[in-house]
Amino acid sequence: MHSEDPRREAGPQGKEEMPAMTAQKDAPVTNCGDTEAGTVTASDRRRFLKGTLVAGSAAASLVGLAGNHVSVARAQGLQSSAGAGARKHYHIPASDQTVHWGYFSKSLPPVVEVESGDFVTIETLTHHANDDAARMIQGDPGAESVYHWDGSKKNVDRRGAGPMDASLFGRGAGEGLGVHICTGPVAVRGAEPGDVLEVRILDVAPRPCANPQHLGKSFGSNAAAWWGFHYKDLLEEPKPREVITIYEVDAAGVTSWARAVYNFRWVPQKDPFGVVHEIIDYPGVPVDHTVVQENHGILKNVRIPIRPHFGVIGLAPAEAEIVDSIPPSYTGGNIDDWRIGKGATAYYPVAVPGALLSVGDPHASQGDSELCGTAIECSLTGTFQLILHKNASLAGTALENLQYPLLETQEDWVVHGFSFANYLAELGPDAQSAIYGKSSIDLAMRDAFRKMRRFLMDTQGLSEDEAISLMSVGVDFGITQVVDGNWGVHAILKKSLFAGAA
Amino acid sequence: MHSEDPRREAGPQGKEEMPAMTAQKDAPVTNCGDTEAGTVTASDRRRFLKGTLVAGSAAASLVGLAGNHVSVARAQGLQSSAGAGARKHYHIPASDQTVHWGYFSKSLPPVVEVESGDFVTIETLTHHANDDAARMIQGDPGAESVYHWDGSKKNVDRRGAGPMDASLFGRGAGEGLGVHICTGPVAVRGAEPGDVLEVRILDVAPRPCANPQHLGKSFGSNAAAWWGFHYKDLLEEPKPREVITIYEVDAAGVTSWARAVYNFRWVPQKDPFGVVHEIIDYPGVPVDHTVVQENHGILKNVRIPIRPHFGVIGLAPAEAEIVDSIPPSYTGGNIDDWRIGKGATAYYPVAVPGALLSVGDPHASQGDSELCGTAIECSLTGTFQLILHKNASLAGTALENLQYPLLETQEDWVVHGFSFANYLAELGPDAQSAIYGKSSIDLAMRDAFRKMRRFLMDTQGLSEDEAISLMSVGVDFGITQVVDGNWGVHAILKKSLFAGAA
Repeated sequence: MHSEDPRREAGPQGKEEMPAMTAQKDAPVTNCGDTEAGTVTASDRRRFLKGTLVAGSAAASLVGLAGNHVSVARAQGLQSSAGAGARKHYHIPASDQTVHWGYFSKSLPPVVEVESGDFVTIETLTHHANDDAARMIQGDPGAESVYHWDGSKKNVDRRGAGPMDASLFGRGAGEGLGVHICTGPVAVRGAEPGDVLEVRILDVAPRPCANPQHLGKSFGSNAAAWWGFHYKDLLEEPKPREVITIYEVDAAGVTSWARAVYNFRWVPQKDPFGVVHEIIDYPGVPVDHTVVQENHGILKNVRIPIRPHFGVIGLAPAEAEIVDSIPPSYTGGNIDDWRIGKGATAYYPVAVPGALLSVGDPHASQGDSELCGTAIECSLTGTFQLILHKNASLAGTALENLQYPLLETQEDWVVHGFSFANYLAELGPDAQSAIYGKSSIDLAMRDAFRKMRRFLMDTQGLSEDEAISLMSVGVDFGITQVVDGNWGVHAILKKSLFAGAA
Repeated sequence: MHSEDPRREAGPQGKEEMPAMTAQKDAPVTNCGDTEAGTVTASDRRRFLKGTLVAGSAAASLVGLAGNHVSVARAQGLQSSAGAGARKHYHIPASDQTVHWGYFSKSLPPVVEVESGDFVTIETLTHHANDDAARMIQGDPGAESVYHWDGSKKNVDRRGAGPMDASLFGRGAGEGLGVHICTGPVAVRGAEPGDVLEVRILDVAPRPCANPQHLGKSFGSNAAAWWGFHYKDLLEEPKPREVITIYEVDAAGVTSWARAVYNFRWVPQKDPFGVVHEIIDYPGVPVDHTVVQENHGILKNVRIPIRPHFGVIGLAPAEAEIVDSIPPSYTGGNIDDWRIGKGATAYYPVAVPGALLSVGDPHASQGDSELCGTAIECSLTGTFQLILHKNASLAGTALENLQYPLLETQEDWVVHGFSFANYLAELGPDAQSAIYGKSSIDLAMRDAFRKMRRFLMDTQGLSEDEAISLMSVGVDFGITQVVDGNWGVHAILKKSLFAGAA
């Protein structure tokens, strides 16, 4: 049903056929409110959910969290277009009915529609869980439903934005042109292009391992893969090689660090449909642990401070029907900034009706640059509050004309620059393949500079000269990632710079 | 006496004539010890100073500072090659006799020779002080002696590594090919190529303004200049333009932030020898404030957190007789990392006998990237302890085979990557001009990756696979600067990663 590679066919004017959703099973989406709690089925998707009032202790707790969350939008008096009043709280479990794997699309029917101001708890799964199924899938019904793949059936067939018949590389449906398991999309009622969606990240928690052998732990995988910055620049033999390191995290959050459990070198893996994957070229291929050599006792005594965050939070772009989940762009997506975690608020320009928010690529920790290609890829559950800011309400605010993903933390504003700010529009019909050959940190630095200058001029009323001096003496530019096709540089502006304002 | 442009003539085999020091006045270098305090004259330079014991309260205070300073070298039992025992404390004031302007040279006679373990207080002057002489020079004998320039005499004639007869561009002696006022060099007795010099930064303080009109303040200048990342990418007219912003810092350190006083656009300035500088092409040109338009009331309510540090701390390189001070390299120099401040320890590979340490380019604050070309350039005085590690003592330690500047703070190790790790050796005879056309952040990221991998493998005993995974999940890569010819990326490794070691 999807025979063309969107990288070659789907430019801004691409007319891709969408993956059919009809084959999917009923998708349960729980409304957490006491009064009308219920579930929704896949066939309900187009009707959109009617939620209920948040009530009871969970709701009170959420309102408390949100109340502590002072965003720039709130400080400027911006508030939900829905106004004050009733708030609903939805829970979207991760299942084969609630995820899309490896792509964004403006044509995906939402799993739920919420009102501005509502809360959503979203379960996300790492697309590296099959690197060690015993630790990251086994016994977990949600993960098992997403990952189910035997000789006759693969629950989530499409993985990536490529052709469904694997006519391009023969890797599998979707061709792995895009890798992230994304939960959603969530539609926000009334959202239209030109609006801004504020996403408050109220809570983030690791998904506990369901295998009784590992009670109380969560696990993640770090793949030093062929798309990493290091891959063609190795010292030791064999060259090149891909190495997967499994990390362990305390699910209860008592210890704030991860530690390595073991690593192994990737060797060719035959998937249940019989395709042999010489390298890590398709997401979710089950690793056969009888054929890999596990090296335990590695990174002894090393503790990685955890920074739980979502590599992917993004809205559906307008430029193409189906978009590879790997390169980040103006509507967010795979930004891979570890600052996009608990307590942070992200703002995204809405590009399509309903906004269509998806969340995925959960990380327990990542360093700036994500050097080897991945972070500690670890399933997480997040609770979000979604606030819609209508275009008409934005004049004179910090969000007016926002054309890129903006992050706000307690201390900072973070602007995300990319090699190409909107690669889908800038690189033409071949954008989705061209982006992989054109990135550089220099270009991303250029974009981050321009965005931060604009932010300072527009939101702080600075002249260009003031903005440029301030950037040189008080703004820090860092390397977000060099592995996602569209490379990233972030600029960090401390709010305390403006503490002198009465 | 120096008729050739070292950028064109002085490669690794360059045979440059050195600037004569004989015309200089007596240079006072005070030994702070109670027992044999004294001064040294320029003609003493080649004889080297004999210092005295540190004694009295100042010495006790210094020893206390040093005692709080736990470096990796100390933790590994490395100590001064001089062993425990007597320590001397020197004070090097900034004067026309103690500075060299715009270049490093292995042939510069040192202003003082110290023993490993000795303390040195070094006054440094910003090369932007003449942007506002009333605030940064007037009434300050040291600054006045360095900056003195009238129609008949310029106390420090050479500014930069270019020809003394200005035959290349006609800007002035040294041609401004290199801009930093560097105090030193300080020789360390017994230092030889292959050794490592540890520089402990014990204290850093702003130099108070000597003008009674501004008592209690220090001032700095930020120049958004033609070498800035922004210069060809401006929004507002006139384009292009250079803008200088004067900042004020509390000299007593009661407030921890700087604020802008005013800015002005650079207009052509005629120097005392009659050369007109259309742009900021030669350091130390006095700005005539009757011809610039001061804009006060800028950056209102903005407070820049101060990060006092030295843009330049470096040893003389071996590859050329005279080396432009702008591009950083393997012996340090103009790294422009704000982390090189109080409490930090830097390690440099020694390239020439005596090591020949110079310090300059003092900054009150800088953001990562130093976007517009400069920081808040503000004169500072630093107190350092210098520890020589002989090559033979380094086997098996973190400093073995150190080939780049390494920084250590209380929390982190910081490795500095450059577009070219040793551009003087890598780019051949034209290195000093070629470097300005070849830099990129991508290259600097490559170098930082390689250095951090080496550091993890050599000092933590990690395999290459362990090092690469750890870098991706726990090491942050940031953009040090994009304005110094040889661009920089730093990698930050938290010591707490290894907290699990008993």
